[in-house]
Amino acid sequence: MEKLIGAALLGQSGGPTSVINSSAAGVFIEALDKDCITHVLAAHHGIKGILEEDFFDISKEDKNELQLLLTTPSSVIGSIRYKLKDPKVDDSEYKRILEVFTKYNIRYFFYNGGNDSMDTCNKISKYINDTGYECRCIGIPKTIDNDLVGTDHCPGYGSAAKYIATTIMELYHDATVYESKQITIVEIMGRNAGWLTAASCLANIRGCGPDLVYLPEKPFDMEQFYQQVTHVVDNKGKCIICVSEGIKTKEGKYIPELYSKLAKDSFGHAQLGGTAVCLARELGKRTTVKIRAIELSLLQRCAAHLASKTDVIEAFNAGAEAVKAAINGKTDVMVSFDRPFSDPYIINYDLISLNEVANKEKTVPLGWIKYDNSGMTNEFYNYALPLIQGELKAPLESGLPKFARLRRLNYRIKE
Amino acid sequence: MEKLIGAALLGQSGGPTSVINSSAAGVFIEALDKDCITHVLAAHHGIKGILEEDFFDISKEDKNELQLLLTTPSSVIGSIRYKLKDPKVDDSEYKRILEVFTKYNIRYFFYNGGNDSMDTCNKISKYINDTGYECRCIGIPKTIDNDLVGTDHCPGYGSAAKYIATTIMELYHDATVYESKQITIVEIMGRNAGWLTAASCLANIRGCGPDLVYLPEKPFDMEQFYQQVTHVVDNKGKCIICVSEGIKTKEGKYIPELYSKLAKDSFGHAQLGGTAVCLARELGKRTTVKIRAIELSLLQRCAAHLASKTDVIEAFNAGAEAVKAAINGKTDVMVSFDRPFSDPYIINYDLISLNEVANKEKTVPLGWIKYDNSGMTNEFYNYALPLIQGELKAPLESGLPKFARLRRLNYRIKE
Repeated sequence: MEKLIGAALLGQSGGPTSVINSSAAGVFIEALDKDCITHVLAAHHGIKGILEEDFFDISKEDKNELQLLLTTPSSVIGSIRYKLKDPKVDDSEYKRILEVFTKYNIRYFFYNGGNDSMDTCNKISKYINDTGYECRCIGIPKTIDNDLVGTDHCPGYGSAAKYIATTIMELYHDATVYESKQITIVEIMGRNAGWLTAASCLANIRGCGPDLVYLPEKPFDMEQFYQQVTHVVDNKGKCIICVSEGIKTKEGKYIPELYSKLAKDSFGHAQLGGTAVCLARELGKRTTVKIRAIELSLLQRCAAHLASKTDVIEAFNAGAEAVKAAINGKTDVMVSFDRPFSDPYIINYDLISLNEVANKEKTVPLGWIKYDNSGMTNEFYNYALPLIQGELKAPLESGLPKFARLRRLNYRIKE
Repeated sequence: MEKLIGAALLGQSGGPTSVINSSAAGVFIEALDKDCITHVLAAHHGIKGILEEDFFDISKEDKNELQLLLTTPSSVIGSIRYKLKDPKVDDSEYKRILEVFTKYNIRYFFYNGGNDSMDTCNKISKYINDTGYECRCIGIPKTIDNDLVGTDHCPGYGSAAKYIATTIMELYHDATVYESKQITIVEIMGRNAGWLTAASCLANIRGCGPDLVYLPEKPFDMEQFYQQVTHVVDNKGKCIICVSEGIKTKEGKYIPELYSKLAKDSFGHAQLGGTAVCLARELGKRTTVKIRAIELSLLQRCAAHLASKTDVIEAFNAGAEAVKAAINGKTDVMVSFDRPFSDPYIINYDLISLNEVANKEKTVPLGWIKYDNSGMTNEFYNYALPLIQGELKAPLESGLPKFARLRRLNYRIKE
C-alpha cells in the first residue's frame, strides 16, 4: 500500500471529560512521529474551526506540555456542540469542509466525541469519500455517559465513575455523622443511560454506597420512590439516593418537566437538571425528615484530580490507535474497545464502522439493575470495577495541579 | 506536679471536615500511650453521648484503623449540633455531665469543633471547675470556615481550600471549552466569613481562578454585581464567579432571603443555600448569556481525597498537643496555631483561653479583598498557600479509598 501523504487534523466535540485531552495527546504524539503526516493540526472548537480555517499548529508545542495533556481535564483545543445538516438537504457546509481539506491537504481526519460527534464524523466521512478526495476519517470515542454502541466502554467513563464512587463514599461519611434522620438525594448526569448513576454503587464495595438508585432505563414512579425511601429511612434512619438527571415516568415525562418547561439544546435534546431538587420537594411534602439535594454538576466530568489511570491510558491509546489505523488505510470507522476478559482485565483496540455507532445509544442492561432499586447486580461490578483502577493525575505545583498550557499558535495558509 | 489519673474523653461537634478524624487520631494515639490515662473513651454524637453515657472504648480498636483515621473524612464517632443552656438559667444538663464525669472518672475532656463547640467546651469547663471536680477541659479547633479567633488558622480549612481551588481550576477548564459566552456562578460555604470563597482565588496562581469573588465581609450590591459581571463578559466572553453562601446586602439581607423565607438551625443561625441559583435567576433577567449555578455543597467539607497533607498533620498534632497540654496541667484552653513565618512556613502549637474563643468569629480582613471584587491581595496568598501544600490520602483498595472502620465497642459502667 502506498502511503497517503498529507496533514492530520483533530477536532474535539461535545461535553468535556477528564481524559479527552489524553486522546488528543495520543493523536498528536503518534502523528508527530509519522513521516507521511506533513502537518499536525487541531481544529479550534471542532467543526467550527474547520469551517473557519481556525487551526493550531501542534508541531509548535512543547513536548512536555503535550505530555501534561494526559492529566489536563476538558478540551484544550476547544469543543463545540454543532449539528451538521443532512447533506441531501443542504451540502454547503460539506463543500466548505472539502474545500478546506483540499487547501490544507488534510488526509487524516480525527474526530473525538460521543454519539452526536460520531454522527458528524460519519457524515463528513461519507461526503468526502463520495467526492473521491482521499481522506481517512476516524472517530475516537469519548463520553462520560458511556453510551456509545460497538465498544466495551468509552474513554471518560472510568474517570467519571471513579469520581462519583469516591464522592459518594465521602458523602456517605458526611451524611451519617448526625444522629438525626436524613435523606440525601444526589443527582448524577445521564440523559438516557444510567451508567454514571450505576457507578455510585461501586462505593458499596467499601460499604459506603447509596441505599437506592434510579436509572433512566427504568420508568420512575413517584409513589414507589416514596415507599422505597420511607422503608429505608424507617429501617436505617439515613437514606442516600442516587438518581440520573434523565429519569422519566412511564409516560415519558422527565421529573423537572412535571414542574417546569424544558429548554432544548441544539441537537434537540432536553436540557435537564433540577431532578434532585424536584424529588426533594415532593418528598418534603410527605415527610418531616431532613432532605438534602446535591447536584454533582460539571464536577463529575472535569475532576481530573480523580482520574482513573486505566481510563487515562486507554484514552491516550485510543488516540494513538486512530492514527495507526488511518495510516494503515482504515477509514470511516471509530476506534472501539474489546474486552476478552474482566479478570485479568484486558482491552484490545479494534475498529467499528461509523454507521454502526452514529446516533445510537447503549443503555444499562435492565437485568443489571436490582428490581427494588437497591443497587446493581454483580455483572455491573465485574464490568465497571476494572475501569476505575489506578491513579494518574497532574503533578502538583504550589499544592495545585499543573495542567497543560498549549501555545495554540495559529496555522493558516494565505489565499 | 502530681499526675492526674483518670479516663480521657473525646467528643466531636459541628459540621464535618476532611481532617476532624485526624485530630481524633491525635487524641487517641497520644492518650493510649499515657500511663495516667486509665481509659480512652469517645462520646457518640458529642455532648449527647455524654448525657446518655454512650461511649466507645478506643483501647479496643485496631491500631491500623486508628491510623486510617488520618485520611478518613467526617466524624467517625458521630457529631451533633446541640446548644447547652446557660447554666444560670438551667443547670440540669451540667449536673448530669458532672455525674457522668464522676461515674467514669473522666479527668481529661477534649472537645473538637468550631465556635459553637468551643462555647459548649467553655461552659462545661467553667461549670465543672466551679464544682471543684478536677477535670482538664481542652478545646481542639476544627472548622472549614476558618473563623475561630486566637489561632492563625483552623484544621479543616486547608483541605477545604485545596479542594475548592483545585475544583475551580477544573471548572475553569470546563467552563471555557465552548466558544459561546458563559457565566458560571459557584456557591461556596461560609456564613459570615469568606475564607473558603477567598480560597477559590488560589487557582489564579495557575491562571485558572475566578474573575469575581463576593465574600460576606463586604455588603453585596446587586446592581454593582450586574455591572461587574457584564464588564467581564464583554471583555472575556466568560465569567467565573465565586460567592459565599452568606453574602448579604447592606441592609443585612441574605440573597435567598430576598426571595424566600429562611429556616433557622438550633443555634439560631440562618440556614442558607440557594445563593448562586438566586443570583443566576436575577442575572438571567437582564442577559441572554448562558448562566450556570453550581453549589459545591457538602463535597467541600468531606473531600478527603484532596486533603492537604499540611492540614492532616496539623489536625493530628492539634489532637496530640491537647493531650500533652492536659497532662501538663492545662485546662480551660483551646489548642491554637501560631505562625512565626510564612516562608519558611512554621507552625508552633500554643494554647488560648476558651473565653477568648467561644462565640467569636474571625473574618477575612477587608483590605485583603480587592476593591473591585476581582480577587484577593498578596496578603491572602501568603496566608493561604502554605495551608494547601502536600497530599495525604487514604490508600486505595479496588480503586477506591480505604477509610477507617472502627469497631465502636460500647463502654458502659453498670449502675
